[in-house]
Amino acid sequence: MTEFIPPGTCWVDLPSPFRMKRGGVLEHGRVAYETWGRPNAAGDNAILICPGLSPDAHAASREDDPTPGWWEAMLGPSKPIDTDRWYVVCVNPLGSCKGSTGPASIDPATGEPYRLRFPDVSIEDVADAAAHVVRALGIEQLACVIGNSMGGMTALALLHRHPGISRAHINISGSARALPFSIAVRSLQREAIRLDPNWNEGHYSDERYPESGMRIARKLGVITYRSALEWDGRFGRVRLESDRPDEEPFGLEFQVESYLEGHARRFVRRYDPNSYLYLSRSMDWFDLAEYADGDVRAALAQVQVDKALAIGARTDILFPVEQQQEIAEGLAAGGARARFVGMESPQGHDAFLVDFERFGPAVSGFLDGL
Amino acid sequence: MTEFIPPGTCWVDLPSPFRMKRGGVLEHGRVAYETWGRPNAAGDNAILICPGLSPDAHAASREDDPTPGWWEAMLGPSKPIDTDRWYVVCVNPLGSCKGSTGPASIDPATGEPYRLRFPDVSIEDVADAAAHVVRALGIEQLACVIGNSMGGMTALALLHRHPGISRAHINISGSARALPFSIAVRSLQREAIRLDPNWNEGHYSDERYPESGMRIARKLGVITYRSALEWDGRFGRVRLESDRPDEEPFGLEFQVESYLEGHARRFVRRYDPNSYLYLSRSMDWFDLAEYADGDVRAALAQVQVDKALAIGARTDILFPVEQQQEIAEGLAAGGARARFVGMESPQGHDAFLVDFERFGPAVSGFLDGL
Repeated sequence: MTEFIPPGTCWVDLPSPFRMKRGGVLEHGRVAYETWGRPNAAGDNAILICPGLSPDAHAASREDDPTPGWWEAMLGPSKPIDTDRWYVVCVNPLGSCKGSTGPASIDPATGEPYRLRFPDVSIEDVADAAAHVVRALGIEQLACVIGNSMGGMTALALLHRHPGISRAHINISGSARALPFSIAVRSLQREAIRLDPNWNEGHYSDERYPESGMRIARKLGVITYRSALEWDGRFGRVRLESDRPDEEPFGLEFQVESYLEGHARRFVRRYDPNSYLYLSRSMDWFDLAEYADGDVRAALAQVQVDKALAIGARTDILFPVEQQQEIAEGLAAGGARARFVGMESPQGHDAFLVDFERFGPAVSGFLDGL
Repeated sequence: MTEFIPPGTCWVDLPSPFRMKRGGVLEHGRVAYETWGRPNAAGDNAILICPGLSPDAHAASREDDPTPGWWEAMLGPSKPIDTDRWYVVCVNPLGSCKGSTGPASIDPATGEPYRLRFPDVSIEDVADAAAHVVRALGIEQLACVIGNSMGGMTALALLHRHPGISRAHINISGSARALPFSIAVRSLQREAIRLDPNWNEGHYSDERYPESGMRIARKLGVITYRSALEWDGRFGRVRLESDRPDEEPFGLEFQVESYLEGHARRFVRRYDPNSYLYLSRSMDWFDLAEYADGDVRAALAQVQVDKALAIGARTDILFPVEQQQEIAEGLAAGGARARFVGMESPQGHDAFLVDFERFGPAVSGFLDGL
């Protein structure tokens, strides 16, 4: 999968052994990251971005890699995360296949890919690996940690486990614990991959890749990442052009089906199925309430941060805004000046990746006030 | 699949040939139904129930089949649909595998199951087949047609195509046309079946049955039939008991996963995959607006009915309440005394199958007023 690592990627070696939450140990692991802007003299302008499950560390273009990043509109000079002011670090999650060590990486003990011998990955491990990058770059304290989706979970774990690592926090479409609807969706995505005979208990190859399972998993993802409201306006009941009929029995007929197909094509064979399984499950396991006898607000109140913003889209069915509200309220109970904003974006969970008109000013307004 | 036809099932032969909306012709087709109660002397107490995709005609127990039906709590003496007063007919949809002719039936021309040689099924054909049962039973005019989910579509098509067939209508969690979110969900369910190598373009057998595809399709269905709100309270993050660990890699761990698993087990091998594909697609195709230049309200206003009730659950993501509101408003525009009620049920699309506390009084209140 190495061809999908962006050319501007840098790496930090993890301490070896790197002990993981659920008992596993990783030898010679590393974490991929990219940076934008420059540290200032006071060393107080660093921002860490923790992305969702699938993105690489290439959040935006850089001089050495002009390819637009996955958050291009949000990150750069004079953009909401203004790299003329901020020194920005984006890490690729531990367990991913886009630079950081994961199930597709070579196990130095065997010379073969880890596959299912990779140790269990929890959100806490992803957070610890990100904290290690922060330390390795000589950052004393972050000005802000920004987490999107799974990255919102990662950021909360980071703040909880590494007190004082950041003065501020923006949680975007994140949550402090997985709830059953999202667990059900992810469980089904994993089952689609596991049931694909080509998955073969993790022993697939490029020739025998679990394409069907990954297609279903991705399409189910896209269905839950957007909203019915957006699709009513965007696709309605419009059919595909009649000069491109799908001859397959029960094949594509409506534009919305073609849209899902496009998403699947851009994802399948560009993400490692085992990485997907590991990180998907890490989200199901995540529950900050573990640290406060099952009381998620009490756990959030233990987080040490001066100022926080928790935002999301009111149409998000996967990480509903009540979860961002819970984060803001919990952090406020711990003494943070924390605010929740539920956006009227029609784009659901994916709004932070497309609705820059709403998410841009919210993020820049918060950062300008730091 | 014949073992899944309830023992009390009766049949009406369709006219042969039976001409279908999209050009196909069915020879020697038949429709399965059951009845409860008795026609009165005036012949004005008949109610027709059009069910959703998967149910059979056995809506409730009968003397000759005491097995509880899929709407047992709603139908019987002194129940919301009171069989001491009403003569109730429930039809199994044309294209199903539970009694009515469908892709798993034997094609008299070949002596083999139709499989994908079964003609395209549209909701209008399902409605025409139901209308034929009404006529064959000697019912001059129905007092009411009740349709749930896909049956709500069927009932609207029936009323539109057979003016005067019923004086009243209850539409439960139905819609006048498929919208893109539900099309996307159904398209993905069909794709999961189609991608299962055992589906084999419809040529499966009991030995090589597309079990994986049907599992995924059913679980995805259940996820969209219920609501996140209900599951938060019902399952939370409760894990399976530790003495029943799932040894499979990435196997079941949370109660919500076990719940989905139970639903899949009760469905797979009890429904014909080709029937599923045919009826699922018939819903995507359904758009009453076809009959009024794309104006769904105008099409609804063409329906001749005296009195109507359109109800649904506010947590339904598959047939959202706005669609039942649209039905009530459209029927009212056509002169019916039509009312919409959005129920605060937490159970989503499935609420009508479980939330009898809310749906019972709504239905009985309407029927009592007829």
